Amino acid sequence: MDIGAGGFPTPPYYAVIFTSRRTADDVDYAVTAQRMAELAADVPGFLGIDSVRQGPELGITVSYWRSMESIAAWRSHAEHKIARDTGRDRWYEAFEVHVAKVERSYRFTLPET
Amino acid sequence: MDIGAGGFPTPPYYAVIFTSRRTADDVDYAVTAQRMAELAADVPGFLGIDSVRQGPELGITVSYWRSMESIAAWRSHAEHKIARDTGRDRWYEAFEVHVAKVERSYRFTLPET
Repeated sequence: MDIGAGGFPTPPYYAVIFTSRRTADDVDYAVTAQRMAELAADVPGFLGIDSVRQGPELGITVSYWRSMESIAAWRSHAEHKIARDTGRDRWYEAFEVHVAKVERSYRFTLPET
Repeated sequence: MDIGAGGFPTPPYYAVIFTSRRTADDVDYAVTAQRMAELAADVPGFLGIDSVRQGPELGITVSYWRSMESIAAWRSHAEHKIARDTGRDRWYEAFEVHVAKVERSYRFTLPET
């Protein structure tokens, strides 16, 4: 989340690791993913999100949250629920979710030369 | 880690989330990354690794471990230390590391039709 920018959170905080393999169905996928990122950012306790995909075979999205309560609030968001249902029906062949408590973190930025 | 395959671990276990932005220096990068994945897999307590990169701007690698002790063993591996030093000197413009305890996880695989 904003590597090299300010605002790195102090542990403990939470990470939701979403690892997925896509189907060939692209209908509404990109626009929904973008919409979900925007909606998540409005949930109190949202800290940041990073998302990378390499073809259909593997995508990793990690979202960061201040507390388990903020994750629960996002999970219960009505539009997010619909998107998750559509994801299982159409966009994902398989996915994993790991909900984790970040206990330690550090960062590195190359010194300016 | 092997989405759709067997062997999904029972929490608690640990995840190391490595998020990075690369420099333009590609010398020895790919071969070292491959070598590190192989060495890590030999460390007792290693559970799996997923790695995705989208251009130089953002890569996410998540490795999964049985315990903090197994992560510490990997951190103290001599060849891994050298690779980390080289990474800071040459391959990475910036990176973040989040060490997290996975408290909950689930997976989904599309039913065969």
